Amino acid sequence: MTETAPRPTLEEVAALAGVSRATVSRVVNGGDGVRERLAERVRRAVDELGYVPNQAARSLVTKRHDAVAVVIAEPETRVFADPFFAVQLRGISKELTAHDSQLVLLLTEGREDHTRVGRYLAGGHVDGALVFSLHLDDPLPGLVRRAGLPTVFGGRPGWGGGTDGTGDAVYVDSDNRGGAREAVRHLVGLGRTRIAHIAGALDQTSGVDRLEGFRDVMGESEPGLVVEGDFTPAGGERAMRELLARHPDVDAVFAANDLTAAGALRVLRETGRRVPDDVALVGFDDMLPVAEQTDPPLTTVRQDIEEMGRLMARLLLRTLDGDGDGDGDGAGGALDGTPAGMVLPTTLVRRASA
Amino acid sequence: MTETAPRPTLEEVAALAGVSRATVSRVVNGGDGVRERLAERVRRAVDELGYVPNQAARSLVTKRHDAVAVVIAEPETRVFADPFFAVQLRGISKELTAHDSQLVLLLTEGREDHTRVGRYLAGGHVDGALVFSLHLDDPLPGLVRRAGLPTVFGGRPGWGGGTDGTGDAVYVDSDNRGGAREAVRHLVGLGRTRIAHIAGALDQTSGVDRLEGFRDVMGESEPGLVVEGDFTPAGGERAMRELLARHPDVDAVFAANDLTAAGALRVLRETGRRVPDDVALVGFDDMLPVAEQTDPPLTTVRQDIEEMGRLMARLLLRTLDGDGDGDGDGAGGALDGTPAGMVLPTTLVRRASA
Repeated sequence: MTETAPRPTLEEVAALAGVSRATVSRVVNGGDGVRERLAERVRRAVDELGYVPNQAARSLVTKRHDAVAVVIAEPETRVFADPFFAVQLRGISKELTAHDSQLVLLLTEGREDHTRVGRYLAGGHVDGALVFSLHLDDPLPGLVRRAGLPTVFGGRPGWGGGTDGTGDAVYVDSDNRGGAREAVRHLVGLGRTRIAHIAGALDQTSGVDRLEGFRDVMGESEPGLVVEGDFTPAGGERAMRELLARHPDVDAVFAANDLTAAGALRVLRETGRRVPDDVALVGFDDMLPVAEQTDPPLTTVRQDIEEMGRLMARLLLRTLDGDGDGDGDGAGGALDGTPAGMVLPTTLVRRASA
Repeated sequence: MTETAPRPTLEEVAALAGVSRATVSRVVNGGDGVRERLAERVRRAVDELGYVPNQAARSLVTKRHDAVAVVIAEPETRVFADPFFAVQLRGISKELTAHDSQLVLLLTEGREDHTRVGRYLAGGHVDGALVFSLHLDDPLPGLVRRAGLPTVFGGRPGWGGGTDGTGDAVYVDSDNRGGAREAVRHLVGLGRTRIAHIAGALDQTSGVDRLEGFRDVMGESEPGLVVEGDFTPAGGERAMRELLARHPDVDAVFAANDLTAAGALRVLRETGRRVPDDVALVGFDDMLPVAEQTDPPLTTVRQDIEEMGRLMARLLLRTLDGDGDGDGDGAGGALDGTPAGMVLPTTLVRRASA
């Protein structure tokens, strides 16, 4: 262990600055009512001694920790394997850094750890939470609600009709359903007639919404042309094999994300099918470098993942800095108890695969 | 924002359990001196109401947060791009989860954010810290020391002769120098005579130690055969081009890690060199799937990265649970003020590239 160096005390700062303890305390806790000349002397003494205010004591006064928790409801193996999370975290991190707020990522091994996460959230260590990748029946929204923390969700929660604690949640999402419709209409426009969908995980709203978009265009005929994947390349391979076994004549596939499409592409090549000549393929995300480096590069539905992260952080910080929703109740949140979502548009990016 | 549900209070728990507030408080804070029958009644009431003890107040009594910070001194873009960190975090996460301690990952956009990290560490939010990927002149060890937190470092710190706060640090490392020696001796044993080294980042001890191992075998002749990389594939490509420009007759390369080797391999293929026939190539890490999926698969020096993570966490938890170093001073840490390292062995894994 690092031997503990004696920590400079408030008294030492006061002595060096030639002011009272109370003055130092006021400056450290926001500087109200201290003349600028004195405050400057205190700040210089703080710097010189490397004084670190006792945050626990300070936050009793300011009620702020200058830290925001990010909770991703996935095992960390998936968090690190899927670039989606890295890009969203980059957006969050940039925004929090600009506001001198510390990003605290709470990692979980599995869902059984969510109680412990709830305990940490309730423990007075962070000012608010950003929660994403929720699954059906996830205990997290309830835990976050009980912790009493301002929260912004990434992706539409929408499970359980609000009884799970997300009924009046603020969230940031992409237009998953509209983007999926555009992808499928593009395949129809190419003259394809046997169009299949490899869905994402259907215990997540992003998976459900993209499937709904597919059905908006294709209707409910031929349910065999829909196979559930799980947003991973391995899931895409498995689903593609299943699809080809059932429908060897498939001539187009809309995959729920680019990683799924990359897995499907491997199986199409293995079975001697040319893309796009025999089977046209569209992904979702425009995840780089994945979408550009497949052979052929992927036609896909672009969503601005980094911007989603920034926006989540911005909405949360705005609430922490005051009343975020303008309804004057000081609580943030939606006006009427219904979910308040910011839904970002998507765009179809055409490359060689469809 | 999620509307804040009224949080169940201590009073409500006491009323439901039919005991006094003081009894509830004692049970919640460890249960000393409360009869088991009563304690059980309180615990049932806590569960039923979903009561979350005020952690800040509780930790004033127990002095424990049941949380450990992990600080990686790299921008998050690198943390997510290099599987090394994911694997080490997996080891840490498993060990902490087994001890019901929350993993709190503090992400930084850049080095200038380390002051904010130090503030969070000093703020009474975690019991200890695991710090890895330190760079030369990194302010982190000093900040951690000042925060007064028990700390275990990943990788030998060893900069600044201890004046940076790492003088008596406990750390977990691999035998980087010994592993590098084994790699280079293997290349010598294959009859190679123009053996080059693409070093890692030389502001990190892992980079320096692997270079030292190379020099132990090759001596200091032909300094042009050493080019500095940065542990990334792009750095490996750049270094390999530089090396070939200077020494087109190179017949073996020891790369500082597998990602560097993968980058070097691309350039060797591009320039029409066969591996291993024309140029033998050895990596470091045995990072899967990278090392197995290159063409040809990599001969490499294996280090057990997940076990390093587990061991770091175990050493820290042992210190938190009592006096970790057995010297009876209750402080943890080395006996004599010198760095106390646990150095794990490495093994050469032979595949097709050398």
